[in-house]
Amino acid sequence: MTAAPLPTAPPDLSPEERDRFYLGLAVEQARIGWDEGGVPIGAALVHRDEVLAVGRNRRVQLGSPIRHGETDCIDQAGRQPASVYRASVLYTTLSPCYMCAGTALLYDIPRIVIGENRSFQASEALLRSKGVELTVVDDAECIELMRRMMTERPEIWNEDIGEES
Amino acid sequence: MTAAPLPTAPPDLSPEERDRFYLGLAVEQARIGWDEGGVPIGAALVHRDEVLAVGRNRRVQLGSPIRHGETDCIDQAGRQPASVYRASVLYTTLSPCYMCAGTALLYDIPRIVIGENRSFQASEALLRSKGVELTVVDDAECIELMRRMMTERPEIWNEDIGEES
Repeated sequence: MTAAPLPTAPPDLSPEERDRFYLGLAVEQARIGWDEGGVPIGAALVHRDEVLAVGRNRRVQLGSPIRHGETDCIDQAGRQPASVYRASVLYTTLSPCYMCAGTALLYDIPRIVIGENRSFQASEALLRSKGVELTVVDDAECIELMRRMMTERPEIWNEDIGEES
Repeated sequence: MTAAPLPTAPPDLSPEERDRFYLGLAVEQARIGWDEGGVPIGAALVHRDEVLAVGRNRRVQLGSPIRHGETDCIDQAGRQPASVYRASVLYTTLSPCYMCAGTALLYDIPRIVIGENRSFQASEALLRSKGVELTVVDDAECIELMRRMMTERPEIWNEDIGEES
């Protein structure tokens, strides 16, 4: 579980500023993951302005092929009733792979805020076809983290998306 | 990790008998999960007739919303190169949800053998549209396990598929 208490957004933010704030929690997780030697992708799950959990890709750290940023975050949030997922927003630093998109579809998460989709994009058409609202922020730090990943740890990145190196 | 050594199929089986044998490993996992108080869905991942791992839904046992039978099995198999997944068959007692289907798509698993799809079916059209070969066995024990689940533990089942009770 997440060690530190989860932060709350300041009360006087605009909707765009709130998205930036929550995406910032995901970016912080991505940075931690990079510093741990892993894949720098992070996520946050937010229910009606309450942060339920943050998470990060932990393929390397835990030797796990199912712990992408989004799935790790949803796991950290624990067992939630369907009604909670259906009123939540998933923040992720990188456009979801099919596994993470499928997890959002399983739980009917209605909106995903995506840090960037230049480095990777697979599931956005599927998600939109199922009615999921996607907001792509095109965040410079998310892009830079993935640029470093693909340059400095390309074998792990390819493994993470099921590609041959 | 799986405690016992993973079994190998007898050498003289027909393709259909091999599928039955490997599906039987998934069914055994489903039974174990039921006896643990959980959701009776199991899986096995088989690469060129070598069982890489078995797994089972452990929502209840581990308090995890991402450990369906298929994802738990793929996690138990550990980090594998893309070439291994692309020559593997995933056996599962129940037709995959979107999360598990997405995991198969992420790793380009080319074939899924499904115990039954009467109790639940969500992702088969998506999987087929992406070229995944599906074989539905319509196994009586898989059906019976899910009948008991939906009758005796309906709240947990609804939670497992993101539905309101």
